[in-house]
Amino acid sequence: MFTNVNPEYVGFLAAFFTTCAFLPQAYKIWKSKVSEGLSLAMYVVMAAGVLCWLLFGILIKSPSVIFANIISLTIVLFIIFFILKFK
Amino acid sequence: MFTNVNPEYVGFLAAFFTTCAFLPQAYKIWKSKVSEGLSLAMYVVMAAGVLCWLLFGILIKSPSVIFANIISLTIVLFIIFFILKFK
Repeated sequence: MFTNVNPEYVGFLAAFFTTCAFLPQAYKIWKSKVSEGLSLAMYVVMAAGVLCWLLFGILIKSPSVIFANIISLTIVLFIIFFILKFK
Repeated sequence: MFTNVNPEYVGFLAAFFTTCAFLPQAYKIWKSKVSEGLSLAMYVVMAAGVLCWLLFGILIKSPSVIFANIISLTIVLFIIFFILKFK
């Protein structure tokens, strides 16, 4: 059914979505100053995971993996900062 | 510095962290019944992204990518369900 689809296009779209997904959460906590309900543990584990993906990108020398994960890490660290600030 | 590290080990660790990261958030919303502060938009975009990664895994025939993203998608949909329920 999908055999004629180039996996690279789907992977690019996937990376775009999973990177951008953190933006509305970052905006929401910055604007509302409400951190209730948010799990600090989630963002700490996510930061560790994104850091590993960044290292993975460096090891396989993939600029797109490095770039996407630098953006994700920045947004995730921003959310962690605001969770701690509005605790 | 890291040139002697197998990228596959780092990638596996990264996938493990970014998949498990959603678990503490899922537990927190289920236990506290508090959805305030959580961005519905984030989880909807994340679900779309994880769905694309799942399709990517099917296209490149990678059982580990398929497996990790089925778990992530399940947890993300669980969080979306509870955000809507406790709105």
